[in-house]
Amino acid sequence: MFLSNFFFPVLREVSSDAKLKSHQHMLKSGMIRQSTSGIYSWLPLGHKVLKKIEKIVREEQNNIDAQEMLMPTIQSAEIWKESGRYNDYGEEMLRIKDRQGKDLLYGPTNEELITEIFRDNIKSYKSVPLILYHIQWKFRDEIRPRFGVMRCREFLMKDAYSFDLSKEDAIKSYNKMFFAYLRTFHRMELKALPLKASSGPIGGDASHEFIILAETGESQVYLDKNILNIDINTYENNHDSISKLVSDYSKFYSATDEKFSKLEFDKIVKKENQIITKGIEVGHIFYFGDKYSKPMKANVLNKDGKNTTLEMGSYGIGVSRLVAAIIEAKCQNGIMKWPKEVSPFDIAVIPLNSKNDSKPIEMAEKMYSELQKKGFDVIMDDTNDSPSSKFKNFDLIGVPYQLIIGNKTSEDKFEFKEVNGKTEFCSFQEVLQKLNKK
Amino acid sequence: MFLSNFFFPVLREVSSDAKLKSHQHMLKSGMIRQSTSGIYSWLPLGHKVLKKIEKIVREEQNNIDAQEMLMPTIQSAEIWKESGRYNDYGEEMLRIKDRQGKDLLYGPTNEELITEIFRDNIKSYKSVPLILYHIQWKFRDEIRPRFGVMRCREFLMKDAYSFDLSKEDAIKSYNKMFFAYLRTFHRMELKALPLKASSGPIGGDASHEFIILAETGESQVYLDKNILNIDINTYENNHDSISKLVSDYSKFYSATDEKFSKLEFDKIVKKENQIITKGIEVGHIFYFGDKYSKPMKANVLNKDGKNTTLEMGSYGIGVSRLVAAIIEAKCQNGIMKWPKEVSPFDIAVIPLNSKNDSKPIEMAEKMYSELQKKGFDVIMDDTNDSPSSKFKNFDLIGVPYQLIIGNKTSEDKFEFKEVNGKTEFCSFQEVLQKLNKK
Repeated sequence: MFLSNFFFPVLREVSSDAKLKSHQHMLKSGMIRQSTSGIYSWLPLGHKVLKKIEKIVREEQNNIDAQEMLMPTIQSAEIWKESGRYNDYGEEMLRIKDRQGKDLLYGPTNEELITEIFRDNIKSYKSVPLILYHIQWKFRDEIRPRFGVMRCREFLMKDAYSFDLSKEDAIKSYNKMFFAYLRTFHRMELKALPLKASSGPIGGDASHEFIILAETGESQVYLDKNILNIDINTYENNHDSISKLVSDYSKFYSATDEKFSKLEFDKIVKKENQIITKGIEVGHIFYFGDKYSKPMKANVLNKDGKNTTLEMGSYGIGVSRLVAAIIEAKCQNGIMKWPKEVSPFDIAVIPLNSKNDSKPIEMAEKMYSELQKKGFDVIMDDTNDSPSSKFKNFDLIGVPYQLIIGNKTSEDKFEFKEVNGKTEFCSFQEVLQKLNKK
Repeated sequence: MFLSNFFFPVLREVSSDAKLKSHQHMLKSGMIRQSTSGIYSWLPLGHKVLKKIEKIVREEQNNIDAQEMLMPTIQSAEIWKESGRYNDYGEEMLRIKDRQGKDLLYGPTNEELITEIFRDNIKSYKSVPLILYHIQWKFRDEIRPRFGVMRCREFLMKDAYSFDLSKEDAIKSYNKMFFAYLRTFHRMELKALPLKASSGPIGGDASHEFIILAETGESQVYLDKNILNIDINTYENNHDSISKLVSDYSKFYSATDEKFSKLEFDKIVKKENQIITKGIEVGHIFYFGDKYSKPMKANVLNKDGKNTTLEMGSYGIGVSRLVAAIIEAKCQNGIMKWPKEVSPFDIAVIPLNSKNDSKPIEMAEKMYSELQKKGFDVIMDDTNDSPSSKFKNFDLIGVPYQLIIGNKTSEDKFEFKEVNGKTEFCSFQEVLQKLNKK
């Protein structure tokens, strides 16, 4: 992509309503534009990052054998009346009447709909365990939408639902999801903490929220620093290893304000291991037994031909919220550096123009095309902007690697820079090696 | 994927409301389930096909340098009042009031919103030509939703919008889209016809609808058979070649009922070249000048510093509708054969079990894992079903290639079958060659 063709409308000033770093950054860099209160359009730069995050989430769900499907955004009110949540949900539910006068709603979550689909299609124990998920837009009519896509009304969520015959099996599904979540956030180069949580309006018996650490986060987090040393890469995708992972995490103290007790913290965690920091909730998992399957009569026949009520869980990741959360964690002093796997481009080629020398731009075009041939998604700055305004734009775009072509560049050595890191002179082969290794 | 784990709820009987072949097939094969009138959930089989179609559409849009973004499903009524369509659109528009009493709507199309985004962000002629697109769910509150996903209420559409400085440039953008559409449908192995159309409620000067031929289609189509010999592969992605493509298509007669005149047909097309058949509309492109840019004041400064109103076009493809359209074109006598690029799996491995012989299933497992290692997405029937019920299931799933492992299979020769084609005995290497070639 040539920068001059890229729909990348920069804002130098943003409204004072945008108080959060991520909100400001997303507006400045043309990632999003608000269309109406709490509802955003994703412009190409933002959309590219959103899709990369979605891809990681999808791959890690598939990795634990969850199956992707897609439920609609608009649901019938009927099933919500069956579960008893239609009246409970309150004004955050966007209620709609269609032209026939039928009560519809824009789904804020999908427990009812997935339970109905399961109930209507699955009759035998042979079809469980089963985990289904979808990545779909949700709507919650927040009374005061704010913080950009962090607390907006229309948002993209991955929600998964597990169906099992027994509590024991349901906990296995729950733990698989625990593993998948930690892998998902790890691939985004985030420090993620699973915290025991109260289960809130979804209801149920076991629940963890996943918080990623960011100094500007909304929640206060108290933890034993040993918990940060647990390395998800040392666990494997099998029952024993996953059980060990869950138990290893439960050995160390961690809590948000809600569950924090200073007495307990001081008693359990040595002073030198205590960390108090901030975080952002990006995921939440629940085991809730028969909360929906019982009122909605989602049963299967077990091996002995007896009707058995399903044990269920649900598992959410805020996909659009993660875009903002990553910015909170990775943007420092106005300089964004996207984690490699979610970066909108693999590398930026930046020729520094000089008035009477067409060499930098010619060499840049050559490098652009060579890198593309090798399969990299490259953005090249083909504008006539000054070096300083070029670098300002790339602080916003946040591509982690830059190939800078200026008067120091020779035919066989290029200036390769990792954002916030050092600049090295490398041959083209060395550039390729670095990109492939990182 | 092992069939026994796949969420694939087959229906042997479907409701008599499902009159269309594709509607019946999608219900039988567990591709979709209706959640409420005209609103469907996509189960894993349907979802896989939908995503493959989406991928082709995306790649061909990117190929003509259209840039992907994403607008929200819920829009403010304000911009529709600005364009004058809020009152005109009628009851098909799903109107919503939020908790603050503000008028919202579920977008049936996006001309207003994209024009607003352009107007608020682009000020200079240097940013055009520009084509933006998104692939997003739309809602039209059909009075009588029917035919499954063919005429439903919540549907997935790719809609693109072009912005140009002059009519001449706008026609260039229009023609590029014409080229992209023909390539898109060609990759789905569909015979697609661009037909001059009246522009309907979007308004405007030039318009084509794209019809794919299917004997069970909804529209009657009259054409000169020479039009079917135009080979999109002989045209290239550049201005001259694309202009030639558009002009080559306009040489031959084609019309739907709406524009058909028997007199004209007989006058222009020799009797032996006349084809009368049926088709399904899957795309529609419009050039509409300043219809939206003028009332909404979408202007840029041209080279001379003068305010210039944008020339626009919009371009839709019914992504979810295409799933049904392909079934109408490709399902014969209850046997589905997906075009290779949209098939839910690359190949099916089908061991034919015999009571006292575990060899077929062992060999099948080996082939399954070898094919996966080579990067193919494989479905293996690991059930104990009889051969006839296995083949019945695969008639529904529609994977075009089958590797059948039965008592005729030896250690080094496998039964390779192309659906509706012949069966050959091949070595594993030959199977790989066939899959890669096809």
